Amino acid sequence: MFNDLSKLFNPSSIAIVGASRTPGKIGHEILKNLINGGYRGRIYPVNPKANEILGLKCYPSISSIDNSIDVAVICIPATLVPSVVEECGRKGVKFAIIISSGFSETGNRELEDKVVKIARKYGVRIIGPNCAGIICSRSNLYATFEPIVKRGNVAFISQSGALGGAILYQLIDEDKGLDIFVSIGNRADLMETEIMEYLGKDPEVKAILIYIEGLREGEGRAFMKAAMKIVPKKPVIVLKAGTSKAGMRAVQSHTGSIAGSDLIYTYAFKQAGVIKVDSVTDALDALYTLSTQPIPSNGRVAIITNSGGPAVIAADHCEKLGLHVTPSSDNLKNKLSKILPPFASLGNPIDMTAQAGAEEYKKVLELVIESREYDIVIVICVPPFFIDALDIAKAICEVYSKYSFPIIPCFMAGSAVKKAVEYMSERSLINIPSPERASKSAFFLYKYGRLRVAARQAPNW
Amino acid sequence: MFNDLSKLFNPSSIAIVGASRTPGKIGHEILKNLINGGYRGRIYPVNPKANEILGLKCYPSISSIDNSIDVAVICIPATLVPSVVEECGRKGVKFAIIISSGFSETGNRELEDKVVKIARKYGVRIIGPNCAGIICSRSNLYATFEPIVKRGNVAFISQSGALGGAILYQLIDEDKGLDIFVSIGNRADLMETEIMEYLGKDPEVKAILIYIEGLREGEGRAFMKAAMKIVPKKPVIVLKAGTSKAGMRAVQSHTGSIAGSDLIYTYAFKQAGVIKVDSVTDALDALYTLSTQPIPSNGRVAIITNSGGPAVIAADHCEKLGLHVTPSSDNLKNKLSKILPPFASLGNPIDMTAQAGAEEYKKVLELVIESREYDIVIVICVPPFFIDALDIAKAICEVYSKYSFPIIPCFMAGSAVKKAVEYMSERSLINIPSPERASKSAFFLYKYGRLRVAARQAPNW
Repeated sequence: MFNDLSKLFNPSSIAIVGASRTPGKIGHEILKNLINGGYRGRIYPVNPKANEILGLKCYPSISSIDNSIDVAVICIPATLVPSVVEECGRKGVKFAIIISSGFSETGNRELEDKVVKIARKYGVRIIGPNCAGIICSRSNLYATFEPIVKRGNVAFISQSGALGGAILYQLIDEDKGLDIFVSIGNRADLMETEIMEYLGKDPEVKAILIYIEGLREGEGRAFMKAAMKIVPKKPVIVLKAGTSKAGMRAVQSHTGSIAGSDLIYTYAFKQAGVIKVDSVTDALDALYTLSTQPIPSNGRVAIITNSGGPAVIAADHCEKLGLHVTPSSDNLKNKLSKILPPFASLGNPIDMTAQAGAEEYKKVLELVIESREYDIVIVICVPPFFIDALDIAKAICEVYSKYSFPIIPCFMAGSAVKKAVEYMSERSLINIPSPERASKSAFFLYKYGRLRVAARQAPNW
Repeated sequence: MFNDLSKLFNPSSIAIVGASRTPGKIGHEILKNLINGGYRGRIYPVNPKANEILGLKCYPSISSIDNSIDVAVICIPATLVPSVVEECGRKGVKFAIIISSGFSETGNRELEDKVVKIARKYGVRIIGPNCAGIICSRSNLYATFEPIVKRGNVAFISQSGALGGAILYQLIDEDKGLDIFVSIGNRADLMETEIMEYLGKDPEVKAILIYIEGLREGEGRAFMKAAMKIVPKKPVIVLKAGTSKAGMRAVQSHTGSIAGSDLIYTYAFKQAGVIKVDSVTDALDALYTLSTQPIPSNGRVAIITNSGGPAVIAADHCEKLGLHVTPSSDNLKNKLSKILPPFASLGNPIDMTAQAGAEEYKKVLELVIESREYDIVIVICVPPFFIDALDIAKAICEVYSKYSFPIIPCFMAGSAVKKAVEYMSERSLINIPSPERASKSAFFLYKYGRLRVAARQAPNW
């Protein structure tokens, strides 16, 4: 099998088979997304009953298009899909993204097998069927009915279209970007392993998240082997569902795959250097922290704060996760004491107290980094109303751009720190809004550092 | 000690000692909050250098006010506080909320002791010093520089002012209400135990959250005894920080209290029936689920969904937490099959698939509740673009108002479900936006149900 997906993610031309004039219909929403997303290639709506949709000339069929087609997005009733895929094959279409449902997920495996057989005959690769489509923000490509997410440098492959969509909405709300999203639907042809392999070689993708319910027999080994090759270069995070009895039961009816013993997955992922998480929150915190931060080689965490409470919670969680919140040395304490008021806490957590402004944050952060006593810094800020959180954000960004050092900002107070959070986000410092999550993010950094070392030393690689 | 805090939370008159004309100053912000919050009693700004602030007549001193004063909010330099408290005593002020810092938290314990001694002489109760103030939304009382949170029926006592403030901002962002907030600061006089005892007897408070870093010697027993009396009536949730070595070190320097062995706290809280959590997220999910939902007597969870992925994650987390995601009986399956399409999953999770609309949600929810096979239902909704989430929310609320049954809504997709979430929130159905958190919330319901039974059977009560 070839593994060049460049034309899938950066096609010169796209056809939408089942394009519709009616807002609310899938074939309309996808076409609208393609146009609104700013896709620069040529778009060909296909609908025998229309002359023009959304200002674009409409074609009665794939074969009637007077140009070559890289990708066909198919959203027509399931029973019509085989003949369209046949047409795609004849036309030389490289990828068919089949949005249509009504295949193996409703018990109609026969129809699905038929489609795959036709596709294989012509070398057309299938994404789906029963999928939500794909995004490649780098190419302004939004071949999906899901919302338009801004440019980023992470990839997300999902076995569940709905979960994928829910996560995309969350990214928009949290002002996070994404490069690639692939909803693989029923996984009749193209699956996570091949896509991951391709993305592993793509230097613009900094981290990969995959939502997996189960892998079919024989797939597991290939997946682990592929992951093992990627981990030395970039992190692979797997949100694995179906780890419980009830979960496995649900997986079997949801995707038809066998979730498999959680122990086996846990062990295999560990061997492969994959970071396994079990919640959406952890998945996204790991993805965005690992794709933006330098990777530490050890797990000594400094906690800098202007408020005691959240720092205590962060310290608790760090220790519980096996990180070391080691006390500052006398030397460091001595230096800190020259900057901070006498009632500040110089140990670790370093509590600068509520008066701390941008200047204190900057100087303390620099002292901590230069001390070489720590590998990761969590910087907590709960701005009192007389302190400008944006100034503190600017100070942290200044230090971040000067040192290549892992910094996890934890600005709390929601809307009151919105501008500060956006400022940092534009400079690749992703805010983690609660102390427990900041600690977990520090843990992911530490963990990936260890996994990467192990992967680089592994004899197979 | 008397324990009637009614005049603290519903005072007839308040004086602000240190009221200021300058926006950004604490004495200005608190006065503004009192006015903007709609407090219905009389407000007396005290500032010898002003005639009028924010449209209110200003008084040169507490003693010059021509009326009795229930509560004095004090925000003047620490050294001036003793004489003002003395004046409060002479004037018959019942409660002094001391916002001013510069007491034991900066090493000046002597000054703090002096203030307490004067207060005791006159029977003035002190909140603070070094605190962020109090809220009682029921009385439109916002005697704090923290933001104005809407009316609710839960109470939150915090040993950390900053963490308290950060949480209040989060509540506003999440459109959640609150009845009472008390920042107890240095806890020189009034502490969590007494406040909790009072709130335990207040029928309008449905659940109590307390952020605790540590309790001083001798306080522990009184706290546990008080909690034990409240638990049969309403849940007490403690966010306990300082459970790790680093955390304990930080607590000692932050509040001067000894965090104490986590094991001892864990055991004592368990004995007292207190729900102990270790993160802000868990604290708020427990608080809002327990204050709104009926309490189940067992832990059989049904998961109803329109999307497989999140349901699998929810099932995994439920089982991990010891809840039972038991398969539906043949009888229930039979009834469900008459409503749902043939490819839906009738087991548990019950996956109605993406086509499910309000009607399916309503009917399935009713069948599940009436089956008596479950004690708690998690209702997941990831609305496809062709389904109106608000309609589904309405259907769920209809069932919720008809049956007294614990329902945890888990609507995912952020802004896309905002209206639905607001609609439910107005009807006391608090949305939990991720499957792992929905499962944890179900666990809190189950856990409190068990704790309450144990507490009611305890011989001491």
